[in-house]
Amino acid sequence: MKKKENENVSKLKIIPLGGLEQIGMNITAFEYEDSIIVVDCGLSFPDDDMLGIDLVIPDVTYLKENMDKVKGFMITHGHEDHIGALPYVLREINVPIYATKLTMGIIENKLKEHNLTGTTKRKVVKFGQSINLGKFRIEFIKTNHSIVDAAALAIYSPAGIVVHTGDFKVDYTPVFGDAIDLQRFAEIGKKGVLALMCDSTNAERPGFTQSEKTVGKTFDTLFTEHSDTRIIIATFASNVDRVRQIINSAYKFGRKVVVEGRSMVNIIETATSLGYLEIPDKTLIDIEQLKNYPDEKTVIITTGSQGESMAALSRMAGNIHKKISIGPGDTVIFSSNPIPGNEKAVTNVINELLIKGADVIFQDVHVSGHACQEEIKLIYTLVHPKYAIPVHGEYKHLRAQARIANELGIAKENIFILSSGDVLELDSHEAKVTDRVPVGAILVDGLGVGDVGNIVLRDRQHLAEDGILIVVLALDGYSDQLVSGPDIVSRGFVYVRESDELMEEARQVVDEAVHGCLDRGTSDWGKIKGSIKDSLSDFVWKKTKRRPMILPIIMEV
Amino acid sequence: MKKKENENVSKLKIIPLGGLEQIGMNITAFEYEDSIIVVDCGLSFPDDDMLGIDLVIPDVTYLKENMDKVKGFMITHGHEDHIGALPYVLREINVPIYATKLTMGIIENKLKEHNLTGTTKRKVVKFGQSINLGKFRIEFIKTNHSIVDAAALAIYSPAGIVVHTGDFKVDYTPVFGDAIDLQRFAEIGKKGVLALMCDSTNAERPGFTQSEKTVGKTFDTLFTEHSDTRIIIATFASNVDRVRQIINSAYKFGRKVVVEGRSMVNIIETATSLGYLEIPDKTLIDIEQLKNYPDEKTVIITTGSQGESMAALSRMAGNIHKKISIGPGDTVIFSSNPIPGNEKAVTNVINELLIKGADVIFQDVHVSGHACQEEIKLIYTLVHPKYAIPVHGEYKHLRAQARIANELGIAKENIFILSSGDVLELDSHEAKVTDRVPVGAILVDGLGVGDVGNIVLRDRQHLAEDGILIVVLALDGYSDQLVSGPDIVSRGFVYVRESDELMEEARQVVDEAVHGCLDRGTSDWGKIKGSIKDSLSDFVWKKTKRRPMILPIIMEV
Repeated sequence: MKKKENENVSKLKIIPLGGLEQIGMNITAFEYEDSIIVVDCGLSFPDDDMLGIDLVIPDVTYLKENMDKVKGFMITHGHEDHIGALPYVLREINVPIYATKLTMGIIENKLKEHNLTGTTKRKVVKFGQSINLGKFRIEFIKTNHSIVDAAALAIYSPAGIVVHTGDFKVDYTPVFGDAIDLQRFAEIGKKGVLALMCDSTNAERPGFTQSEKTVGKTFDTLFTEHSDTRIIIATFASNVDRVRQIINSAYKFGRKVVVEGRSMVNIIETATSLGYLEIPDKTLIDIEQLKNYPDEKTVIITTGSQGESMAALSRMAGNIHKKISIGPGDTVIFSSNPIPGNEKAVTNVINELLIKGADVIFQDVHVSGHACQEEIKLIYTLVHPKYAIPVHGEYKHLRAQARIANELGIAKENIFILSSGDVLELDSHEAKVTDRVPVGAILVDGLGVGDVGNIVLRDRQHLAEDGILIVVLALDGYSDQLVSGPDIVSRGFVYVRESDELMEEARQVVDEAVHGCLDRGTSDWGKIKGSIKDSLSDFVWKKTKRRPMILPIIMEV
Repeated sequence: MKKKENENVSKLKIIPLGGLEQIGMNITAFEYEDSIIVVDCGLSFPDDDMLGIDLVIPDVTYLKENMDKVKGFMITHGHEDHIGALPYVLREINVPIYATKLTMGIIENKLKEHNLTGTTKRKVVKFGQSINLGKFRIEFIKTNHSIVDAAALAIYSPAGIVVHTGDFKVDYTPVFGDAIDLQRFAEIGKKGVLALMCDSTNAERPGFTQSEKTVGKTFDTLFTEHSDTRIIIATFASNVDRVRQIINSAYKFGRKVVVEGRSMVNIIETATSLGYLEIPDKTLIDIEQLKNYPDEKTVIITTGSQGESMAALSRMAGNIHKKISIGPGDTVIFSSNPIPGNEKAVTNVINELLIKGADVIFQDVHVSGHACQEEIKLIYTLVHPKYAIPVHGEYKHLRAQARIANELGIAKENIFILSSGDVLELDSHEAKVTDRVPVGAILVDGLGVGDVGNIVLRDRQHLAEDGILIVVLALDGYSDQLVSGPDIVSRGFVYVRESDELMEEARQVVDEAVHGCLDRGTSDWGKIKGSIKDSLSDFVWKKTKRRPMILPIIMEV
């Protein structure tokens, strides 16, 4: 890009609306004059303190306020942290979605569930193909990842080119389809790239991530070693190549395959129908047919590799699966690593399976889908950007990539670890954070989107910690005389049947507090409630060192 | 042991009362005729679903029922999972405690907190010394572990000798005191050992655990590399040798040391006063003096290496520590590995520190306190037991040790993976599980011991998930007329101010249900409450796909 061209043009704005303070919820707006394109639209899973929350989606107020500019969503691949918020966000920002074929297939499953198929424009994009949207041109570039059909994006704007890797690894020997299109990265790099936004997940890990194909060899070895037992393999539902390799090994060793777990079945159906997964004839059988084959001639591929309590594997381990129970003579393989935070849940399932007598293999039957340090260096070297914007990872991962970028010669002041909401304005002369836009996490609980906020969560935490004491009493509306109660009802506090004395004493404390107020002629309900709360709270703390929620309710009769 | 001696004698019973279904809560009874001795008396920390619970202690009903037999507690070392239940159990089983000096010092701190010093008999035991208790003789043998003064026990009974390793590693070059007394293990092995109960924590890990001394070298290197910044080191409070090495490095590099965090201060005081920790003069300074020294001349040793939200390090990272805040120019070292289940909490603190601008080092500044596979093999080979009873670890660890024992020539039928409550009867002829005794986990919440059980926990989980809807109404006691309400009060359900419509509709649903009952002449409160629950629950589920707890309260006026 020649400097002259740039002199009269505006700057490009890069605005991450999520994904930088947490794992997941990836969504980034690119704005140039009257045009905005959005890359990815993911959800994140609730933190431990978000009690009762099902999932978390980004606040897209900025997009709503600039609705007329927004041209479309570019989706890099079909993982939940990149597509999961679409059904919610589309209701407010109804613009077309652009994605590769399998990614779109997975999105369409979601749209169907939410009855959004009819109202959502979709365009399937091929690798190498470009989309023109307002002032932008967006090119989809083939990469490798733990889901097929993953894309990097080259985003062409009058201010320069931004390369966004999406989630990626370099797999020279992929199981299906081509290796990452390194030549294209190099070509674009040669043109001159303004900024590189590169996956940081494995930026702390030295070396290269191994090829998916190595796992296939491991399966062959394990199938040889465990030729006389049933084999149950848990893995990520979306890893179609992994499933393909399991099926290949099963076929090679003359075993029939059952697929179990709703999300696994869905993705396999989608992948098969779109041509991403060929299954040899008569290899797949229905779960009902399992009993017609000897154990050592069957393989079960299942969800639950993260120890999710409701997934098929946990149900099998806990003997609450309707069709399959696990016992001695079963070999269970975890073809996965625990995602941070899931370690204990996974270990619990492993222990449960071992106690049931199964042989459990949980190490070295997995490779990552993300680039390690040498791969990150390769991409930086091919793309040779002016600015580095590490994305996708916790802060420590972003920092680790920043260090790599710096080692590769990018000056510290040209490396930007952004926060969600930052507005990074850039052109070939300079880049800086010039503004902030509103961002946030919107909690989804059941059908409710955003109706559970901090106050409700704090109440849930309080209730979870020590339960609730409800004090009810009825006052005569005219005379302010006590006509019923005070009674105390508790939940989650103590086992009441064995705490008669404590509860009776508590009632007396409240009784005194109420009569104290009434005798003093206090008829202000607020004051009566305050007095109940204070006296009961003190009493309970003294007796139990607990602080249950105290909720006085006064009825007027 | 000669066979003849055994012919007319009873069998030895080994009865684990905890520690086998979970990490922690180690406590095992050894019974021979009229004598019972108890090894360790630990607590465990609550699982994620034990909402609001502070700690968990073992059910010692079996000991209470055999009170006249119980001679004393033998404590192997001063970690919470081996001593933490003592203050609770001693109230019911008041027998003497036997432990080495530092272990007893740590126990005494606990007894003081619980006002039990005056009523608890205590005897400090030296390594090599034996205690005679009823039919038992118990010898304390020096080992190495991540806390000093750890002991293995040789338990001599007429039925044979049992060796219990406690938690241990083999450290040929310990930082303080002697290496594990391998010669004594060999001597006892030579006499003939009935059973070995060996630490399984690292039984999955090949090789040898490194010497504690290697961490000292790492500190020296880190102090050299970070000579121009303040250094903050988080580690386990009870690892006195680790603290010693930090202080040594600080002294060598001319830095003053501040100790921060209550448990750290306590243990250092105890260890110093008992002669387990010598601190060079004028090295330790008070936190108030920190400001008198340049940053690069200070070291802060702190608790919080597990990401505990209330520990000193988390408070420093979150800017809520009163005296110390962390920022650019600080080097924070985690001299610890996350305990399973704490990974996410630790990572969160690391990210927070990095965002504050600190340099954070969290890998390879720690060694384990538990024996790896080669050490386990060494102990088995020296002790050469007839029976193997793997202890201390999750089921997968016990299984891994069982495999090792089997490889070393112990027949499968002589290896026992016990469950808590199993009664293993053994002598030199045979060993088998002959009975079960009651066992369980007793939950401690504040001052309450055992008053929170499954019903209360289930209520807390329900409240945590979706909150509570309380429906109150008042009925005339004579006419069964509705004189007030029904009103709905909610907590932890939705943000009521923004859900007027939903709450009003809900009130109408309840109103109809109540009037429906009253109009039909139903005055049975149970039926009215049932009708309220059903109708409101259906309505709320339809509208929100949530299931809050519904609590109808009827007042009679």
